[in-house]
Amino acid sequence: MSGERTAADLPLPGGDFRMLVTRLSFQGMMSLGMLENPLTGKKASDEKSARMIIDDLLMIREKTSGNLETEEAEHLNRVLESLEVAWAELDKGDSVAAES
Amino acid sequence: MSGERTAADLPLPGGDFRMLVTRLSFQGMMSLGMLENPLTGKKASDEKSARMIIDDLLMIREKTSGNLETEEAEHLNRVLESLEVAWAELDKGDSVAAES
Repeated sequence: MSGERTAADLPLPGGDFRMLVTRLSFQGMMSLGMLENPLTGKKASDEKSARMIIDDLLMIREKTSGNLETEEAEHLNRVLESLEVAWAELDKGDSVAAES
Repeated sequence: MSGERTAADLPLPGGDFRMLVTRLSFQGMMSLGMLENPLTGKKASDEKSARMIIDDLLMIREKTSGNLETEEAEHLNRVLESLEVAWAELDKGDSVAAES
């Protein structure tokens, strides 16, 4: 074995609730146009994908009820709150555009 | 409204436990080289990504313990069993290759 370690040598963070929630929140922020898509280098919103991810996180909250550490539950609540706020803004923008 | 409906009009299946597990299992099967990657049209295995997805599913099973419908729990168990079998085969293949 060589002494060099690269990012590819590090284990991917599977099996960690916070990391799963964080990965989903990045996907949500990308779908909301808040983050660049690393594949395209562009920001683009996709309301349906964003709603799907938020609904998945709400479902995960329900299905993990009673089984989370306090910190895990708080992290999930914070992520959901910020995604819901951004989604409501996006949805409102779409409604205004549709009415004009 | 026009009478035509396209796939894009259908709501994405967010908020459904079985669908989330199924999506993760497709990602797992892609990482195990069992399914074509739709972006590249090729099958390619990535052991670390596969392990991450399996570990996430194991964590999801633990964190949803007691909160799943019987059918949801059975679906998750079936998915995990088939991914674990395929992962063990892939891992064994890698070890043999490394030894030779």
